[in-house]
Amino acid sequence: MAAAQRHRLAVAGLGKIARDQHLPALARSEAFELAATADPAGGLPEVDHFDALERLLAERPDVTALSLCTPPQVRYPLARAALQAGRHLLLEKPPGQTLGEVEALRALAEAAGVSLFATWHSRFAPAVPRARDWVAGHRVERVRIAWKEDVRRWHPGQRWIWQPGGFGVFDPGINALSILTAVLPRPLRVVSATLEVPENCAAPIAARLSMTDDAGVAIEAELDFRQEGPQTWDMAFEGPEGAITLQAGGSRLSLDPPEGAPAMIGEYDAIYRRFAELIGRGESEVDVAPLRLVADAFLVGRSRPTEAFHD
Amino acid sequence: MAAAQRHRLAVAGLGKIARDQHLPALARSEAFELAATADPAGGLPEVDHFDALERLLAERPDVTALSLCTPPQVRYPLARAALQAGRHLLLEKPPGQTLGEVEALRALAEAAGVSLFATWHSRFAPAVPRARDWVAGHRVERVRIAWKEDVRRWHPGQRWIWQPGGFGVFDPGINALSILTAVLPRPLRVVSATLEVPENCAAPIAARLSMTDDAGVAIEAELDFRQEGPQTWDMAFEGPEGAITLQAGGSRLSLDPPEGAPAMIGEYDAIYRRFAELIGRGESEVDVAPLRLVADAFLVGRSRPTEAFHD
Repeated sequence: MAAAQRHRLAVAGLGKIARDQHLPALARSEAFELAATADPAGGLPEVDHFDALERLLAERPDVTALSLCTPPQVRYPLARAALQAGRHLLLEKPPGQTLGEVEALRALAEAAGVSLFATWHSRFAPAVPRARDWVAGHRVERVRIAWKEDVRRWHPGQRWIWQPGGFGVFDPGINALSILTAVLPRPLRVVSATLEVPENCAAPIAARLSMTDDAGVAIEAELDFRQEGPQTWDMAFEGPEGAITLQAGGSRLSLDPPEGAPAMIGEYDAIYRRFAELIGRGESEVDVAPLRLVADAFLVGRSRPTEAFHD
Repeated sequence: MAAAQRHRLAVAGLGKIARDQHLPALARSEAFELAATADPAGGLPEVDHFDALERLLAERPDVTALSLCTPPQVRYPLARAALQAGRHLLLEKPPGQTLGEVEALRALAEAAGVSLFATWHSRFAPAVPRARDWVAGHRVERVRIAWKEDVRRWHPGQRWIWQPGGFGVFDPGINALSILTAVLPRPLRVVSATLEVPENCAAPIAARLSMTDDAGVAIEAELDFRQEGPQTWDMAFEGPEGAITLQAGGSRLSLDPPEGAPAMIGEYDAIYRRFAELIGRGESEVDVAPLRLVADAFLVGRSRPTEAFHD
């Protein structure tokens, strides 16, 4: 695709995920070019910048698509403004603070006739399709998820994570749930959950979920934001014919113990290719299954106060 | 309809709501006759009784419909068994512990070709259609909900309410949310919530929710299970052209201060008429909007431990 035909896209919210993943993927994209940014805290050299998204939408009618990378708490009014201004919209995960926000955005996108893409980046990890193929061909009786990372290392100073609507340990944990719901063929139900909430925070720092489906698969997930030393993002599908283990957030299937952060290589390149496809076909992709599992964990869960967390 | 043509229906779960509402409504019903009951704690004189629903389903193929009135924690496997046995299914509210359970039941009913009716009895309160008509013809800027009752008076000894999946104050509060979502025309979003959870319970004893919609209506709900003295189940819709107030759980529109319990007169008669209609048309009615608001309140909420509750 020639440069002149690329979709002009703006990025709103220039925090860690935008700078680490979206901007490099856009620099490599054949389908999109970064045409503008919006963030009250300032922009990038040589890219047209707006402090407020509303001004960007008003002054840059040539920008036809937007990636929204802000924390979840401020996302809904910005998403609504973009859709009402007729722009295609890509949402970083989670797609909203609540299921109600996502349903409202789905309706707005449909009314505006634009594409809405609620992304789950971990679903684009290289080992996920291979795991799905394996699960389709084998009986699975048990799934074990261990998603344990050091919040001080990966989310330094991100206070929004601990505030209401910030998801706490479900911010990384929903990545595991997005892989799980993409790999297992049947709808999942949360059977029980325990949520550990620091006494000075609104969101859990650790959670343990028991889930199942109508085939009786026993799924246990341990999510923890207090993991020092080696970091763990593993998911094992086990049955009488063998097992397959995703490691390092789905970036590999090897049997070695994982070290370091999930590589996320290619996840965002694939996300932007998929966004271009959706726009081309006039379609949206909005799967709330991972967010619904988090909501259900709260509905059926037992919260336990735990010691205060200080960054 | 002649008696011989009535649907033979079984009631599973002979607790308070079954005895107070379902059995009297069934005794008056022209569309259904009570043919059997299931409850591990024993049955009724002169009605065929089974300790286990599975046996009822196996031994009474003539029973074509089931009302499920158990606490939410044990409902899913019973509901699934009934649907897989090809029976039309009426669910007392809430329709499940989690959204995932309700979605799974919806899929099972569709696969089995039977009617699934997730009831919200308060929607059948006499003043609800009049409130909906009023709201359709007037601008609403503000909704105030006060749903305050004495749990010791209305739920004596019902320990399941305080256990995980028991909903706590949302057990009555979801009635208010079912009226609200039936009266307001636009989808609602939870903006913030505070949940007071007794230190010896898994579910909240009080909650305060702020909600809105895309027209900017400001909705405040105060739910409290600790209300002694006069009991309150009120919902006021207010705007520049006036206000309408539902009182006593939607059973009247008068301006007098409400006293005593919501009358619930006719709610369950209307529910069984609607169930017969759905069966006749081969349709289901499953609206998760009230349950989604509760889930979203947990997602975006801030929990506060409060003093232990003892029945």
